[in-house]
Amino acid sequence: MNPYPTDHYRSLRIALLGAGSVGSQVARLLLEHRDELAARVGAPLELVGIGVRDVAAKRDVELPAELLTDDLGTLVASADIVVELLGGIEPARSLLLDALAAGADVVTANKALIAAHGPELFQAAETVGAQVNYEAAVGGAIPIIRPLEQSLAGDRVMRVMGIVNGTTNFILDRMHTEGSTLEEALAVATELGYAEADPTADIEGFDAASKATILASLAFHTVVPVEVVHRQGITGVTDAMVEQAERNDRVLKLVAICERLEGEGGEAVSARVHPVSLPATHPLAAVREAKNAIFVTAESAGDLMFYGAGAGGPETASAVLGDLVSIARRHVLGGPGAAASTHADLPIAPFGDVLARHELALTVADRSGVLAGVAGLFAEHGVSVESVRQDPADGEASLVLGTHTASEARIAAVLDALEAHPDVERIDSVIRLID
Amino acid sequence: MNPYPTDHYRSLRIALLGAGSVGSQVARLLLEHRDELAARVGAPLELVGIGVRDVAAKRDVELPAELLTDDLGTLVASADIVVELLGGIEPARSLLLDALAAGADVVTANKALIAAHGPELFQAAETVGAQVNYEAAVGGAIPIIRPLEQSLAGDRVMRVMGIVNGTTNFILDRMHTEGSTLEEALAVATELGYAEADPTADIEGFDAASKATILASLAFHTVVPVEVVHRQGITGVTDAMVEQAERNDRVLKLVAICERLEGEGGEAVSARVHPVSLPATHPLAAVREAKNAIFVTAESAGDLMFYGAGAGGPETASAVLGDLVSIARRHVLGGPGAAASTHADLPIAPFGDVLARHELALTVADRSGVLAGVAGLFAEHGVSVESVRQDPADGEASLVLGTHTASEARIAAVLDALEAHPDVERIDSVIRLID
Repeated sequence: MNPYPTDHYRSLRIALLGAGSVGSQVARLLLEHRDELAARVGAPLELVGIGVRDVAAKRDVELPAELLTDDLGTLVASADIVVELLGGIEPARSLLLDALAAGADVVTANKALIAAHGPELFQAAETVGAQVNYEAAVGGAIPIIRPLEQSLAGDRVMRVMGIVNGTTNFILDRMHTEGSTLEEALAVATELGYAEADPTADIEGFDAASKATILASLAFHTVVPVEVVHRQGITGVTDAMVEQAERNDRVLKLVAICERLEGEGGEAVSARVHPVSLPATHPLAAVREAKNAIFVTAESAGDLMFYGAGAGGPETASAVLGDLVSIARRHVLGGPGAAASTHADLPIAPFGDVLARHELALTVADRSGVLAGVAGLFAEHGVSVESVRQDPADGEASLVLGTHTASEARIAAVLDALEAHPDVERIDSVIRLID
Repeated sequence: MNPYPTDHYRSLRIALLGAGSVGSQVARLLLEHRDELAARVGAPLELVGIGVRDVAAKRDVELPAELLTDDLGTLVASADIVVELLGGIEPARSLLLDALAAGADVVTANKALIAAHGPELFQAAETVGAQVNYEAAVGGAIPIIRPLEQSLAGDRVMRVMGIVNGTTNFILDRMHTEGSTLEEALAVATELGYAEADPTADIEGFDAASKATILASLAFHTVVPVEVVHRQGITGVTDAMVEQAERNDRVLKLVAICERLEGEGGEAVSARVHPVSLPATHPLAAVREAKNAIFVTAESAGDLMFYGAGAGGPETASAVLGDLVSIARRHVLGGPGAAASTHADLPIAPFGDVLARHELALTVADRSGVLAGVAGLFAEHGVSVESVRQDPADGEASLVLGTHTASEARIAAVLDALEAHPDVERIDSVIRLID
């Protein structure tokens, strides 16, 4: 049934940049599954070179020495399709802009690059009718870019909430299941290779924020710069917070939330990353270890969930190859690439406009009238308290307050007021609740 | 950023066939979201007509009377894109072949048609460079066709296991949660509109078999005719089987399984529909009520799951519109449609080659030596028994045997032998176990 027999169509020249855990797997699959891929595309995919910093470096997967080169510029100039797996901004950005300017298509798994320079790359692609595919940039092997971009193209996405960082999910999962401290869980994550030597990008939420930018931009047809993503990592998550969540049949997760908001000035969008407390029955609560999952709510489609491995060499390579085959098919069939859709151009809501329920744990002086005083502060700032639990102990008392839905701005004002209140010894924790 | 302003590109003429629960929602969304869709596509989508059997019929959603027509042939001839939501084989098949012959593209949610005549339609489309999109045919709103076709295009799918029929999932879920009999649960499903007046297509597994055909064909790049799908519905599922599953922390589900098998003659594929007993911890076990979910295992990507609403007017309409926007974008950008990929053309494994663990409940005579005799039958046919539980009661005894993995052919032979054995009063139930 294939009308484009592979012996009638010239090979497509693939340049691979990077030979790390993902790059080496992509190279292996391209070489091992050469015939199968040619049949799927309708033309052979010829790996013309693998660009690396050091051709002599030792690698886990053996790669044909004649394909390795440290002259990335020349390699890129020779390719029909450039697969970028270098990570980081430069030289990836410049190499891809060169590739696109020359009319080549691009596949990348580089979330930091897409989050920071996506619009620039998409614009460069559009100018020449080329395409930038980046399925692997969010959720590793999980198809989420294409479903948002294509499957839901006729729907209105209201909300995307995802566990998009495997390292922090592993750590929080371990704090719950093993009763580990954050430091202990991080040490295990590092030992198992889930966390890097410098774990900042993961545990401070930078990685998840890049992904939030990408998801929000796609979901709302609006450029959402990474700078506007409110970001809070997991370093403030304590054992006490984990125990408190468990007492209420809840689980702490670090999530990226992208949401349409109806503000006073009309519709706006919000993208943020922070820990939340989820009911144990929520589908995302069951996402264990380093797995990822993305929960999408659309106006017509309702709730959808996409689950799978969020990282890993072969897993991410699967998504990269899916992108590569899609682009290669378009080469064979003809026609320009689809442009990024940013027509909606909605305003970005200030973080203060975001609505959420909060749970606050306070240590307060243990004397009568304190609760009334604290409750008064909430009322003063227009935040309605849903539940209070008070446990007295040795001259001070612990107070756990759950709020009704309130804007982040009001909650921030309450927190300021609590900090200044003479009866409040300290604010032990603040966590947002998801229903 | 959109290089194709909608005022520079002519309208795309959309013919809608069918105005039932899905069709009326598609019409509503096309009319209500006209501007938004035009911006996403780069050209206005003009609904030129809605083909129905009876223009005077009463409908739940009010549709513009001037768009309704019972002259489907003329309507189809005028369209750039035909959206077929009639269901059934004829006249859908002939109308779509006419549309494709005239160079129009097709979007359909018709699983029976795609399962029975997919290859014919895809061939007709390929001849003229047109496209047939059918995301809504499996899993309603859940993006599964596009992920299999595109996202996993560079991977090797090993197995697809899905809850793809909401009616039977609702019934089985209710038998578990409410302790209902199958008849009671079916009555509730009918009352709630989950089951049709004649529920045969659902409860006998015909609907799931159509979907198994579609999933297997896509996953394995091989035409898998619906006739070769081994099919067993839920009518044989008894309260006793539900209770037995629960005693072992298991849940009964009707699933479609599409699998690559390594047979004696090399690689082959299998597609089948039957109830299985899943551990309560399996991700598919948590799929409740009428929801659908598809669990995909690929060589590189590992395990993926796609979850959401498997039916419903607006939900299915979301998938239809996603297909429509994709096709319309291609119209604007140019280039022919992608052909169906059936290059692998793997043989279909006979059902007897499929491997599974089974659990059998027997009523046997309550006298010594019976267990040895029965166990001997299993050994004789090369089926290894993993577990046995025996409960004596009033002259007869109930015997529950769990097997190790064995071929369906061997199990069938064991069942024949058990039927003929003088000590076996009856075979109460047989269920396949998934780990």
